[in-house]
Amino acid sequence: MTLSRTADTLDAAALRDRIQTLFDRSGLMRHLGARLGEVAPGRVHVHLPFAPTLTQHLGLFHAGATSTIADAAGGFAAMTQAPDGHTVLSVEFKINLLAPARGESLEAIGQVIRTGRTLTIVQVDVHALNAGKTTPVALMQQTIINVPDRTS
Amino acid sequence: MTLSRTADTLDAAALRDRIQTLFDRSGLMRHLGARLGEVAPGRVHVHLPFAPTLTQHLGLFHAGATSTIADAAGGFAAMTQAPDGHTVLSVEFKINLLAPARGESLEAIGQVIRTGRTLTIVQVDVHALNAGKTTPVALMQQTIINVPDRTS
Amino acid sequence: MTLSRTADTLDAAALRDRIQTLFDRSGLMRHLGARLGEVAPGRVHVHLPFAPTLTQHLGLFHAGATSTIADAAGGFAAMTQAPDGHTVLSVEFKINLLAPARGESLEAIGQVIRTGRTLTIVQVDVHALNAGKTTPVALMQQTIINVPDRTS
Amino acid sequence: MTLSRTADTLDAAALRDRIQTLFDRSGLMRHLGARLGEVAPGRVHVHLPFAPTLTQHLGLFHAGATSTIADAAGGFAAMTQAPDGHTVLSVEFKINLLAPARGESLEAIGQVIRTGRTLTIVQVDVHALNAGKTTPVALMQQTIINVPDRTS
Repeated sequence: MTLSRTADTLDAAALRDRIQTLFDRSGLMRHLGARLGEVAPGRVHVHLPFAPTLTQHLGLFHAGATSTIADAAGGFAAMTQAPDGHTVLSVEFKINLLAPARGESLEAIGQVIRTGRTLTIVQVDVHALNAGKTTPVALMQQTIINVPDRTS
Repeated sequence: MTLSRTADTLDAAALRDRIQTLFDRSGLMRHLGARLGEVAPGRVHVHLPFAPTLTQHLGLFHAGATSTIADAAGGFAAMTQAPDGHTVLSVEFKINLLAPARGESLEAIGQVIRTGRTLTIVQVDVHALNAGKTTPVALMQQTIINVPDRTS
Repeated sequence: MTLSRTADTLDAAALRDRIQTLFDRSGLMRHLGARLGEVAPGRVHVHLPFAPTLTQHLGLFHAGATSTIADAAGGFAAMTQAPDGHTVLSVEFKINLLAPARGESLEAIGQVIRTGRTLTIVQVDVHALNAGKTTPVALMQQTIINVPDRTS
Repeated sequence: MTLSRTADTLDAAALRDRIQTLFDRSGLMRHLGARLGEVAPGRVHVHLPFAPTLTQHLGLFHAGATSTIADAAGGFAAMTQAPDGHTVLSVEFKINLLAPARGESLEAIGQVIRTGRTLTIVQVDVHALNAGKTTPVALMQQTIINVPDRTS
C-alpha cells in the first residue's frame, strides 16, 4: 500500500476529468439525466436512468434517447484519443435497435475500433438493465472527425 | 367558398389528429420542446426550437437532438401509412451530419420512400433555420417495422 | 451555330475523360461488365447489364453487385469535385435494398449532397430497367474522403 | 475413437451442405472467386483471394468486393438460423472501410447478433491477410429478412 499515486492513475484521473468537463458542457446530457460512467483510453460508458421524459408513444425509451447516449458514448470514446488541441464531431452513425428498450436504465459503451489521423471509427453497444437482468438493445457504428478546438 | 369540408380535408384532419395523438404521448418530444409540423400521407415534419438544453459540448444542437427529431419525423411518416391496428418501431437508421447544426430551430422532414407489407423505408432531411436562411444539417435513411398495436 | 466548342463543352469532355480513365483502371468494373454512363460535376451514372455472373442464390442481382455499382457511382461523383492532386476513398456507406433487383440492367446514379474540405457526402439511387419499366431497387448514403494521389 | 458420427457432427455437416448449396447457386460468388469457409450456427466465413479482377482504380480490393463478401457472409450466417421453408434477403447494410484492403486475400466473418421472428441482425468483420499478418479492413452491420422460399 502506498500514499503516492502512479503516473497511470494520474493519467486516468486527468483523462476522466477531461471527459467529465466536456460531458458537463453538454446541455442535452444534463437535460436527459445522463451520467458519465467509466472512462478509459478508447472506451467510455454513459448511463441513462429511465424517466417518463425519455419515452416514445408506447412508453419505452425513445430510439432518439438510445441514439443520443450511444452517440455521446462514442464521441467521448473518440475524444479520449483525439490529438492535443482537437475536439471531435460526429460525421455519421448507424444504429440498429435490437430489442424494445425498457428497464430501469440504459448503458451505452463506446469503444474505438480504429484511430486514423483524421477519422475515428467507434462501435457502441447499448443494453438495458431491468430487474437485475441485462438486455442488448442497440448496436451502433459511428464515424468521428477530429477538428481543431477553437474554444480552448 | 363552402361550409362543407371535403372527404379529403376530413381525411387530412383525421390523419393529423392520429399523428398528433401519438406525438403527444411521446414524453421525449415534449421534454425536448419538439412540435409536430405538417402531416401528409407518407410525409411528416417535426420542428425543434433551439434551447441550451439541446446542446453538445460546443453549444451546437447535439447530434442526438438532431437524430431524435429525424427518427420521430421518419417514424410518424411511416405511421401515416401503417395498416389498421398496427403501430411502428424503428428497426435501424443511419444519419449523416452534414454541417454544424446551429440556428433558431431545426426542421426534420420524413418522407416514405417505399412501403412494404412489413417494412417501410423512409428518408429524412433535417435543416437548420438561422436568420432567415435554411441550411441542410442532416440526412437519414431509416427502416421501420409495422407491429400489431396492443395498446389501442 | 459554330464550329468552335465552348469552354464548358471542353471542360465536360475533360471531366468525362478523367473519370473514364479511373473507371477503366478498376478491374472490378470491367470484370462485372459495368459501364460508365453520364458524367457531370457532382453526378455520375454507372450501368450494369444483367448476367448470370452477377446473381445471388435466387437468380436476382446480388446485393453485392448492386452495392458495388452504387459505391462506384458515388465515389466517381465525389471524384468529379475532388481537389487537384487528390483521389478519393470510401469511408463508409449504408444501402437499403428497396425491392428485388431483377431486370435487364441496373443503373446507379451518384449525386454529391455536400462537399467539405476533407469529406464528401453522396447519395446514390439504383433502379432496375425491366421491359421498359424503371423500378427503384436501392438507396445509398456514402461518405467519401479526399486523399493525396500518389499515383499520378 | 468411434466409427459413428454424433448427431451434432451430422447436423454440422448438414448445415454446411445447406449453405454450400446456396453458395454454389450464387453466380457472383463464383465469378469473384469467393470460397465458403467455416460454417457454424449463426456464423459463416467467406474467403476472397486477391485478383486483378477485384480492384479499384488504385489497385486495392474494391470496396464493392469487400462489401460483397461481407454481405454474403452475413446473409449466410442469418441463413443458418432461418426457419424451415424460408430463405433470406438483405434489407440493408452499413459498412465502414477501416483500412486500405490490400493483401493475398480477404476473409469476411458474419456473426448473428440477434434473431427475431422476421428480422435477423448480423455483424460482419472483414480482415486482410498479407504476408502472414491479419489487418481489419471493414466492419458491417446488416439487417436480414426471412422470406418464404418458393424455389424449394
